[in-house]
Amino acid sequence: MAPPTRVAVVGASGYAGAELCRLLLSHPHASLAAVFGRSRAGELLADAVPSLAGVCELSLETFDADAVANKAEVAFLALPHGESAAAAAALLDRGVQVFDLSADFRLRDAEVHATWYGAAGEPALREKAVYGLPERYRDAIAGERLVAVPGCYPTAAILAAGPLLSAGLIAPDVIVDAKSGASGAGRSASLATHFSEIGEGIRPYKVAGAHRHTPEMEQELAAAAGTEVAVTFTPHLLPMARGILACVYARPRDPSIDETGLRAALCAAYESEPFVTVLGPGKLPDTAHVRGTNRAHVQVVLDARAGRVLALSAIDNLGKGAAGQAIQCLNVARGWNETAGLAHTAAFP
Amino acid sequence: MAPPTRVAVVGASGYAGAELCRLLLSHPHASLAAVFGRSRAGELLADAVPSLAGVCELSLETFDADAVANKAEVAFLALPHGESAAAAAALLDRGVQVFDLSADFRLRDAEVHATWYGAAGEPALREKAVYGLPERYRDAIAGERLVAVPGCYPTAAILAAGPLLSAGLIAPDVIVDAKSGASGAGRSASLATHFSEIGEGIRPYKVAGAHRHTPEMEQELAAAAGTEVAVTFTPHLLPMARGILACVYARPRDPSIDETGLRAALCAAYESEPFVTVLGPGKLPDTAHVRGTNRAHVQVVLDARAGRVLALSAIDNLGKGAAGQAIQCLNVARGWNETAGLAHTAAFP
Amino acid sequence: MAPPTRVAVVGASGYAGAELCRLLLSHPHASLAAVFGRSRAGELLADAVPSLAGVCELSLETFDADAVANKAEVAFLALPHGESAAAAAALLDRGVQVFDLSADFRLRDAEVHATWYGAAGEPALREKAVYGLPERYRDAIAGERLVAVPGCYPTAAILAAGPLLSAGLIAPDVIVDAKSGASGAGRSASLATHFSEIGEGIRPYKVAGAHRHTPEMEQELAAAAGTEVAVTFTPHLLPMARGILACVYARPRDPSIDETGLRAALCAAYESEPFVTVLGPGKLPDTAHVRGTNRAHVQVVLDARAGRVLALSAIDNLGKGAAGQAIQCLNVARGWNETAGLAHTAAFP
Amino acid sequence: MAPPTRVAVVGASGYAGAELCRLLLSHPHASLAAVFGRSRAGELLADAVPSLAGVCELSLETFDADAVANKAEVAFLALPHGESAAAAAALLDRGVQVFDLSADFRLRDAEVHATWYGAAGEPALREKAVYGLPERYRDAIAGERLVAVPGCYPTAAILAAGPLLSAGLIAPDVIVDAKSGASGAGRSASLATHFSEIGEGIRPYKVAGAHRHTPEMEQELAAAAGTEVAVTFTPHLLPMARGILACVYARPRDPSIDETGLRAALCAAYESEPFVTVLGPGKLPDTAHVRGTNRAHVQVVLDARAGRVLALSAIDNLGKGAAGQAIQCLNVARGWNETAGLAHTAAFP
Repeated sequence: MAPPTRVAVVGASGYAGAELCRLLLSHPHASLAAVFGRSRAGELLADAVPSLAGVCELSLETFDADAVANKAEVAFLALPHGESAAAAAALLDRGVQVFDLSADFRLRDAEVHATWYGAAGEPALREKAVYGLPERYRDAIAGERLVAVPGCYPTAAILAAGPLLSAGLIAPDVIVDAKSGASGAGRSASLATHFSEIGEGIRPYKVAGAHRHTPEMEQELAAAAGTEVAVTFTPHLLPMARGILACVYARPRDPSIDETGLRAALCAAYESEPFVTVLGPGKLPDTAHVRGTNRAHVQVVLDARAGRVLALSAIDNLGKGAAGQAIQCLNVARGWNETAGLAHTAAFP
Repeated sequence: MAPPTRVAVVGASGYAGAELCRLLLSHPHASLAAVFGRSRAGELLADAVPSLAGVCELSLETFDADAVANKAEVAFLALPHGESAAAAAALLDRGVQVFDLSADFRLRDAEVHATWYGAAGEPALREKAVYGLPERYRDAIAGERLVAVPGCYPTAAILAAGPLLSAGLIAPDVIVDAKSGASGAGRSASLATHFSEIGEGIRPYKVAGAHRHTPEMEQELAAAAGTEVAVTFTPHLLPMARGILACVYARPRDPSIDETGLRAALCAAYESEPFVTVLGPGKLPDTAHVRGTNRAHVQVVLDARAGRVLALSAIDNLGKGAAGQAIQCLNVARGWNETAGLAHTAAFP
Repeated sequence: MAPPTRVAVVGASGYAGAELCRLLLSHPHASLAAVFGRSRAGELLADAVPSLAGVCELSLETFDADAVANKAEVAFLALPHGESAAAAAALLDRGVQVFDLSADFRLRDAEVHATWYGAAGEPALREKAVYGLPERYRDAIAGERLVAVPGCYPTAAILAAGPLLSAGLIAPDVIVDAKSGASGAGRSASLATHFSEIGEGIRPYKVAGAHRHTPEMEQELAAAAGTEVAVTFTPHLLPMARGILACVYARPRDPSIDETGLRAALCAAYESEPFVTVLGPGKLPDTAHVRGTNRAHVQVVLDARAGRVLALSAIDNLGKGAAGQAIQCLNVARGWNETAGLAHTAAFP
Repeated sequence: MAPPTRVAVVGASGYAGAELCRLLLSHPHASLAAVFGRSRAGELLADAVPSLAGVCELSLETFDADAVANKAEVAFLALPHGESAAAAAALLDRGVQVFDLSADFRLRDAEVHATWYGAAGEPALREKAVYGLPERYRDAIAGERLVAVPGCYPTAAILAAGPLLSAGLIAPDVIVDAKSGASGAGRSASLATHFSEIGEGIRPYKVAGAHRHTPEMEQELAAAAGTEVAVTFTPHLLPMARGILACVYARPRDPSIDETGLRAALCAAYESEPFVTVLGPGKLPDTAHVRGTNRAHVQVVLDARAGRVLALSAIDNLGKGAAGQAIQCLNVARGWNETAGLAHTAAFP
């Protein structure tokens, strides 16, 4: 057997970074070789991520591209938006393969990127980067050196509605009403994620196009549809640590379509997919059923009375919505078994 | 001061019944005179509802219309659908004023009622019953002897979207994506409300017109709009005990409308309402902020990019969505101060 | 009827302050006249405490003793430890009656105070202040100008074990294993109260005498026992916003005592108390049953096999553990009905 | 490589059974060959355990010893107490190796078993069964045909306090104050585990020796101590799905002992243990950090002021407290790598 590929995680003390470390520690072809994290540099990773106590002896280092390149062939970047681009460029220059979990390389249109995220670093790289959703871009990811791992909400929305748009079954004008666990907001303490403020209620936030995942959904749903897609996106924050449930509302293109036809499109899209399960008729997704995994549960339902289609999905925002998907991209990019290190199912309950 | 009006609660050991008792025990013009509850008859109410330990010495009795009439001038019925109609008829015959929290008298159209709830008891009464949403039917409720207290989801949807439909600002075709706490499912133990199944995730249920609150929304939104309204209703169950958050999506009638115009309609509708607050611009409703109260927080937002209106509301499903609203109806029906016993705000946090 | 007494709340945007405002807004003899809060001065109170939207139009002011004295006859101080003493002194000088929710005046022994809280301000005032637990110091609180409202954990421990120590039924050496909701940690955002870190698990903190409530328990349990009491105190943080459950373990003084004798002591202590309920035999306290109230549910159980007594209590840390108790002290101090503004029971569920 | 050992799970639709299936589906040396479950026989396992949708195609069968023996060499029994004994006997007769998660074979003393669980089946088997705690009985488990997998609370208590008793550092008279997630109560719906009743509070239950795990703790702590151990056991139920936190209180044997000496005993006991981590000084266990795993985090603290030792542990009640431990026993019993299928760490958060 080949020696494991050495992998570094940059931003390892955040939630996506911690999940990357957890998955890499059990990965059959990769080894966690180094971890970087500015705010807690010098600390043991296991002190920053206490679930690793007794398991991992690495210490967090201050990021340095040479240090990464010395220790690893692959780097995952779990950095804030705007900080990844330069780090990725430096790493690629040094021959390190990069999987970037930030938004720095997701939006192909420079102007759109600038509108939503401000001045963009490394525009040339952004043009070349592949959008790391294997269910849609598997071939492009294979062998790729720079993968832009999708956002959590876009992943949920695209997995639910993408095949229906691709098949021309729904009109290119959708509502994405999505509900997320608090880990999606990251590990920085703030009143908006303080337990007592959010632990026993639900609330929307950044509605009506204020959330930065909107253009990412628009880009990828348009790619699926082959035409522009208008998106009304409503994120909600609710009292659970992990999970995204998305309900995508759209009009059927053909008013006489029945649910069977809709389901057939989803089933066709996902019949060979190892991580996406179209639930049986009458069953509905539940974030608890995919928690801690790279899995997605999807469903489509026709509201015949009102003439609407509901495409539903449940993922783990840190799994298929971030770290799990990044590992899946690693597997695809390096030609490994796509499920390596990701085959587990959710702890139930 | 007049002696307090004697009130009975039938179905007092369920969640809506318990909330009625809690509110009546602090009501300045009413006294809790008797409590009825089949499954726990003979027990102390405080054993069935342990928050009342040391506070209330009433025992649960088996329902009997004569017993109610002997002890009370007013009865609240918190009974399962299908059981209320006969009880209400018997009580009205004996001169007892009835506030019914079931669906037995909510739907004015007998055929619609039969479709959704099966064979209907007391059709003549149902025709006469007033729909107990004071913000829309205050005058009709005043002096009324039989009030059909609205369902929790319809209350949330109507408070958010009703004024916009009434003002002709949105098209009569809406999506109601609503999220509820588990107490909305009642107090009967089932796997669907077992802590471990639902405590750390979110899931939709009874989507695409399968939930019985759909026709109730259609009836009342149509009454507001003056025309039929198509409703796609998606309820969700999430890990909190109390609260409903509703997001109603609709198209603006006039594509050039701005948010100010929309807000003006909401503000006009609610400027004199003691329990409905239109939040300031940029603020969004949160169920935690109305928990335990009869209050509603509402907001309207324009998604100008996608051409959609979002009307949002947060209520407590057992407060404004059930028991609180029933007490508000009592106050209106008897000509008392409408906020009597209901003025408190939510415990924060 | 007399005009309501004007009351100011200092520190109104924290959790204890917000609860004080909520309770004062419904109080029959008091009116909320002014609110102070440094970090959000200038904001509407209802913006800082969104449950008050549409209900309260006061704005938060920067604390100033003259401003308080101009507007109010009574002030509640919900300030951090160390900041209250000077404010209280300034207010007392200006004739304002002070109810202090900090620890600045709770410990009678200057040396003990210095050990746990550092240099102490206003030692002369601390000597005179009354410990605001009406169940033990009702007579002293009556008419008092400076009341030190007890800490949440001590309140829970004393209500459970105090009468057993006073009656000489248990040995003066106890373990207090207590479990608290997250609001006890206050409203300042930190990783230790970040939803994702604590929302789905339980953990102890500051064990083995590291928590500052230890000397307060020792002081008051000793006062009850008439002798020094050793306390092992273990606080825990769990995923709920409000509530403290305390389990106090002790040895019976007389090994042949039975549970009836223990219960008799509790019942005797609390038979006339409006807020403390000794639960019936076989029933155990649950924080959910007192949430949002000034009530305490207490119980005592004998573990005859192991020769141990368990004294148990449930309170709301912001209710009987802070703001509720402060209002109760106000009522006692001013000779009002002790339950004024506090008679409500917990919303169930 | 040898073909995987075929394993059956009996009681697969309960929580411990579902966790066994999850772990076996990823086990390198075992294959899940058949699943049995009375109440849902005929259903797909993935319908009963929806986290397995798309992953497992087995159907639940009605238990039959011959059917098990035909399909599997090993059976896990996750049956109610009282039902396991006969099933185990029938399986052993047919040559199937049995790992029993019920209490039927845990208590070695027939009289104690009868007192707590009633008439005991298969007393001869119970005498021979090995208590499946590898950290204490590894050698006896190796090669064994009938393993009695420990209860969740006893596992937590023994891991924390066992080494201290074995080393003679604490007196044989302990308090176990333990806090459990709701999955410990199983999957049968009841009011006691209904979300709305328990989702936002904490409460003790079956205190003072009423819980059946008491004699199991007494047996095994006595085995560790070499003398009888009195146990006061207080279980609590709190709003989380998984996890047990145990705090064991005891007196040090030698009043002059320091914390270093106590920690040394724990560290010595666990230095070679793959699943038990003694946390660093100053760190305290948190159930969130071991969730979904077979790991235990333990700590010991000295309360020098009060002269008490606190031994603390966190486990997952379905992991190290049930299914994980059962798989660990399988690995030991069959001479496999002890961590096979169990090496993963907890998802954080």
